[in-house]
Amino acid sequence: MEQNELISLLSKYDTPEISDALDNLHINGACLGIAPRSRNAEITGTVFTVKFEPVSPGVSAKAGDYIDDVPEGSVVVIDNGGIDNCTVWGDILTLVAGMRKLAGTVIDGACRDLSVISNSDYPVFSKHAFMRTGKNRVRLASVQENITLSGITVNPGDFIRADKSGVIVVPRHNIELVLEGSQKIHEVEDKIRSAVTGGMRLDEARRTFKYNQPLR
Amino acid sequence: MEQNELISLLSKYDTPEISDALDNLHINGACLGIAPRSRNAEITGTVFTVKFEPVSPGVSAKAGDYIDDVPEGSVVVIDNGGIDNCTVWGDILTLVAGMRKLAGTVIDGACRDLSVISNSDYPVFSKHAFMRTGKNRVRLASVQENITLSGITVNPGDFIRADKSGVIVVPRHNIELVLEGSQKIHEVEDKIRSAVTGGMRLDEARRTFKYNQPLR
Amino acid sequence: MEQNELISLLSKYDTPEISDALDNLHINGACLGIAPRSRNAEITGTVFTVKFEPVSPGVSAKAGDYIDDVPEGSVVVIDNGGIDNCTVWGDILTLVAGMRKLAGTVIDGACRDLSVISNSDYPVFSKHAFMRTGKNRVRLASVQENITLSGITVNPGDFIRADKSGVIVVPRHNIELVLEGSQKIHEVEDKIRSAVTGGMRLDEARRTFKYNQPLR
Repeated sequence: MEQNELISLLSKYDTPEISDALDNLHINGACLGIAPRSRNAEITGTVFTVKFEPVSPGVSAKAGDYIDDVPEGSVVVIDNGGIDNCTVWGDILTLVAGMRKLAGTVIDGACRDLSVISNSDYPVFSKHAFMRTGKNRVRLASVQENITLSGITVNPGDFIRADKSGVIVVPRHNIELVLEGSQKIHEVEDKIRSAVTGGMRLDEARRTFKYNQPLR
Repeated sequence: MEQNELISLLSKYDTPEISDALDNLHINGACLGIAPRSRNAEITGTVFTVKFEPVSPGVSAKAGDYIDDVPEGSVVVIDNGGIDNCTVWGDILTLVAGMRKLAGTVIDGACRDLSVISNSDYPVFSKHAFMRTGKNRVRLASVQENITLSGITVNPGDFIRADKSGVIVVPRHNIELVLEGSQKIHEVEDKIRSAVTGGMRLDEARRTFKYNQPLR
Repeated sequence: MEQNELISLLSKYDTPEISDALDNLHINGACLGIAPRSRNAEITGTVFTVKFEPVSPGVSAKAGDYIDDVPEGSVVVIDNGGIDNCTVWGDILTLVAGMRKLAGTVIDGACRDLSVISNSDYPVFSKHAFMRTGKNRVRLASVQENITLSGITVNPGDFIRADKSGVIVVPRHNIELVLEGSQKIHEVEDKIRSAVTGGMRLDEARRTFKYNQPLR
């Protein structure tokens, strides 16, 4: 399948459905503790990785220059090691990312300019919010190499889906199996919703539609 | 007094007023760190307890079947030990709970389907939000037995009041004393609000209306 | 410059701009982990300090009486040592503070009455939200003496600026230098925003407008 088609399909499922599909495949893609900071709390796209690393106090370290080369449709996924006391994303990057038609930004760390980002249509998710710059505190260590996001390994080209329940990573080589599994879960849950709306007990609906299958 | 009348009276007080009444009776009912996740951030009702416990990795554990037997007007209070990385409540339980006219759900742990719950008129409070299922991670350990909620003992039939300041438990056998105390505090605070609105200094209003009584 | 003029100038900059100006002066004024609790999430003013300290269990300690003497335009800055399980601010103090035309309240600790405060035009920032009173748990230890806020020293008369990115303290004797620095940063960022909106690459705009200067 083409990439645009994969992304379009993935966007149909919410993170709980995709998480259940990953569970069935014994893949861990759920990234703990990363919440939406923008009005737009939905992301679907492919990963562009960015990694920052701390510098010693007093060492100069300029802001990372990478955003101009991120391909349209990408999700900028930033590994700043979960640091809360300096930021690696703000309003200017949000502006540029929106103009470049990126799909969103996910940060294992902090962003700033919440006054702008909280009203933004460009989706930003982060672990923390603060205002102190990362300049002279952290420096760009790599782009498009493997990183970790809340302990989950993320590779360039993997898929990201994020919504108000949080952020989930789908490994690229599993995307078609995950889409297939998400669709099955979506259908079962739709049937359960219809059945209970029609008056069936939930325990009976779960049995009827085989929600409570044993672990595979 | 009848239960419906007790609940109706309790709903007139906010959690700070009730907390002060509990303080005066030397009862600890304030449950730390549990916040509203739904648009509707008000709960008043009687406790139906649910307890989950972890299972070893690789052990099958189906979703807990209990919601169909929870009486109308109950607050589902779930003890999942404060766990953040798997969820024990989601959109289908929210749908069923609303149809069954339950009063709300309070979780010492995490819920999922925030895209639905954040816009829900059925009130859900939890310590965490995530998307990974509790299925095959935790299992139903008990219903309607004593549990703890952020370290506070909760018994079936106790009363819950929750608002944007958090969640508070009122022991069943103290409810009438707590209502009486809450009313006194409500009256004193109303008098203070009126007095300061009329131009009285707050320190004088506190003295006049005996806000700063010594500890009993 | 007169104090009102200083406050008016400071209110033109957001906390990220002021933080960058403080960085250039090697001043640490960024207060970690303090978030807006009110609808109004903007504060600019001068510091009035309040410090609470814990009392032993069973010791009486009345609510602190200080609000009636806080000068108009002040920011009440409360050091309760970051404590999460009892509160030192609520709806009556919010009412009185608004009537007295105070500029806002910042708490290294918890506030209550979120049902009122969340819809308030009087700005309140805190580390935590809960409902249990500080009465008989903490007592007023000092007013208008030096305190710490998330580890940052705050002196009476210092300046506070707070927005959705958090809270920042500007030492009184540095205010003119900080205003000057904030203005320079504001101008550079405006030029960068205009340039990238006009199609310039961000890395080029940063070079052109000397955003990435070495550490001084």
